[in-house]
Amino acid sequence: MKEISGGVCAPKGFLAGGIRCGIKESSPKNDLALVYSQKPCAAAAMFTQNKVKAACVTLTQENIAGGKIRAVIANSGNANACTGDDGMKAARRMAHLAADALSLDPKEVAVASTGVIGVAFPITKIENNIGVLKDSLRSDGQGHSDALSAIMTTDTRKKEIAVEISIDGKPVRIGAMAKGSGMIHPNMATMLCFITTDAAIEAGVLDSILRRAVKKSFNRLTVDGDTSTNDMVVIMANSEAGNRSIKSNEEGSDFKIFSDALEYVCIALARMMARDGEGATKLVTVTVTGAADEQSAETLAKSAASSNLVKTACFGADANWGRVLCALGYAKADFTPEKTDVSFKSRQGEIQVCKNGQPVSFSEETAKKILSCDEIEILISLKDGKGEASVWGCDLTYDYVKINGDYRS
Amino acid sequence: MKEISGGVCAPKGFLAGGIRCGIKESSPKNDLALVYSQKPCAAAAMFTQNKVKAACVTLTQENIAGGKIRAVIANSGNANACTGDDGMKAARRMAHLAADALSLDPKEVAVASTGVIGVAFPITKIENNIGVLKDSLRSDGQGHSDALSAIMTTDTRKKEIAVEISIDGKPVRIGAMAKGSGMIHPNMATMLCFITTDAAIEAGVLDSILRRAVKKSFNRLTVDGDTSTNDMVVIMANSEAGNRSIKSNEEGSDFKIFSDALEYVCIALARMMARDGEGATKLVTVTVTGAADEQSAETLAKSAASSNLVKTACFGADANWGRVLCALGYAKADFTPEKTDVSFKSRQGEIQVCKNGQPVSFSEETAKKILSCDEIEILISLKDGKGEASVWGCDLTYDYVKINGDYRS
Repeated sequence: MKEISGGVCAPKGFLAGGIRCGIKESSPKNDLALVYSQKPCAAAAMFTQNKVKAACVTLTQENIAGGKIRAVIANSGNANACTGDDGMKAARRMAHLAADALSLDPKEVAVASTGVIGVAFPITKIENNIGVLKDSLRSDGQGHSDALSAIMTTDTRKKEIAVEISIDGKPVRIGAMAKGSGMIHPNMATMLCFITTDAAIEAGVLDSILRRAVKKSFNRLTVDGDTSTNDMVVIMANSEAGNRSIKSNEEGSDFKIFSDALEYVCIALARMMARDGEGATKLVTVTVTGAADEQSAETLAKSAASSNLVKTACFGADANWGRVLCALGYAKADFTPEKTDVSFKSRQGEIQVCKNGQPVSFSEETAKKILSCDEIEILISLKDGKGEASVWGCDLTYDYVKINGDYRS
Repeated sequence: MKEISGGVCAPKGFLAGGIRCGIKESSPKNDLALVYSQKPCAAAAMFTQNKVKAACVTLTQENIAGGKIRAVIANSGNANACTGDDGMKAARRMAHLAADALSLDPKEVAVASTGVIGVAFPITKIENNIGVLKDSLRSDGQGHSDALSAIMTTDTRKKEIAVEISIDGKPVRIGAMAKGSGMIHPNMATMLCFITTDAAIEAGVLDSILRRAVKKSFNRLTVDGDTSTNDMVVIMANSEAGNRSIKSNEEGSDFKIFSDALEYVCIALARMMARDGEGATKLVTVTVTGAADEQSAETLAKSAASSNLVKTACFGADANWGRVLCALGYAKADFTPEKTDVSFKSRQGEIQVCKNGQPVSFSEETAKKILSCDEIEILISLKDGKGEASVWGCDLTYDYVKINGDYRS
């Protein structure tokens, strides 16, 4: 597997584009994106678990049922959530506009939105600009970049990746873009992720591979514990690579190669999102090993990564491991405090701070140096079993408060 | 019922005192407290649900089983948590030292600690000062104040209250002190609360009344979602008021008068803690009405009060009700988004911002004015049933990050 450039336009037969249509009124930034496959696709998607779902989520859930999505239209600046019947009409209109422009069935279009909740959706701005949006489609990296910039909100970095693998002797590509900075918590929260691939694969197989990859990546990501109303991951596969179709066989090497590559792509994007968490200065990876099972490991790691007190300690480079143990203690998973070890690690080294639930003497100076890096790891060993999991989060900073204390205005 | 002064020393027969013994090394503040009843008591207590429990919690859980606690020794500056066998020995020693000084059985002593986790407990500082501590005992408000100042950590305000009620024609008093500022979340988190009363009441009855009051007060409090290792509420009743003993009869007026008064005391302290949440500038009360049942109302209210995004919006006086709906949506309780109303309220007035899950037009200026008060309410009406609950929380501010980014040093 090798990383390549081009994002969602890297796989054969995909175009992308992005424009400014004025949904973000006061901003000069792009706010409307389109990703499109020239050929029919197999498709799969996953959505927020929040009971309050944006209209676009409800609509795309309907459309994905057919497994044939081949275009995504997405906007930033307005979430089209808590907008009632008018919001639902706007989401349907958005799908129709894209379908008409691309000569597709509206059921082949996924609609995604991100932005403020509870503000009427300005569908006329999309109506007035759908032609310009279609004309912005390109098959190169610029098309990808224009689309990506149109889905960013408080993101400060672009989240993008593309890889090439070989299946059946044919080069197969996977490309992806994502947005997500705040309102992020396991089970997919204000994040959008659009993935393209030229692999030949059945929709059902694609769906199961996507679920597996999301479970190990985006669902192990936490920024602020808030699960949003709009999250969506969509993958479209258009068969242009010409490989023999990937079958549902976990033992098969085609399946494994593709599955591993998709997991790699999703984990890379999840880490980028954690690192770019609102106000974050550090990517914090919490790894639990020796748990009774993988689910316990994940639950415990999430609890530590989500704790405001652990997150502020990371910000302050304070080796306050007591807060880590405390956060494990209130997680809904079993472990034995008296067997628990904790270490901190970064490129500056590794230091053990707790052994069998008790303090070990350590150099505060060394710990501070380790925790002052922009990527740090909290390693927790439970000695109970073989379950392990890593969760990605970030520190809690002044800037998080600043960004979110005045978001709407 | 009337409020009176004197705190835990208001009820007859109780003494309190506090000194500095040096556990908080660099601080001139008190760090060791004692509360003592001259007569035997019926007692009840509740403790943290965290799996990682401080040694003092384990010890006091043992001692309260007898229902006869009549003294509490408490320190700040060291939580005696994650301190292994030595920590447990230190907690036992602390009970023995207090018992010897007061000529009690060690099983009549509750031990409480608060402060940093995972640092060896400096028991010799208590050994060296137990006589001074005993000599600090007083029966007046000064004794109460000295003790209260010794259990405070990042608290910026004293949490204290005393009330007088009439039972059986006799004046009966309840006095209380509490500490708690950070690491606070429903199910009792880094909070200590010591309550005294001169009521005559059986230990079993006292226990059930305490559980009821805590459920409606401290367990509906959230500052940062972190449940601590050390939480403890202890109530001691010494019968000095001379009333006929309160029986376990929810219909009985004695029971109801005492129960209501204890609930009043606990809710008052819970509100004081929320208001003094680390870095908080505002007390935020979230009230859910019309839920399917009381438990659903509490779960939903807690979710909104705990959301970092709702908390930062409160800090910024931003009427971002979409975040409120979003937080309800990921709570583990049912409701119908399309029937949900949201209003904001304070002494500046009340304004509806969401009706049936959709925006209503409102004056941003008025909303800002309402949300700029230091006590604000978020009112959520679900129209599903008769369940209702209020939860107390606070805003999330720069100072929360500052206080917790560098706690240990």
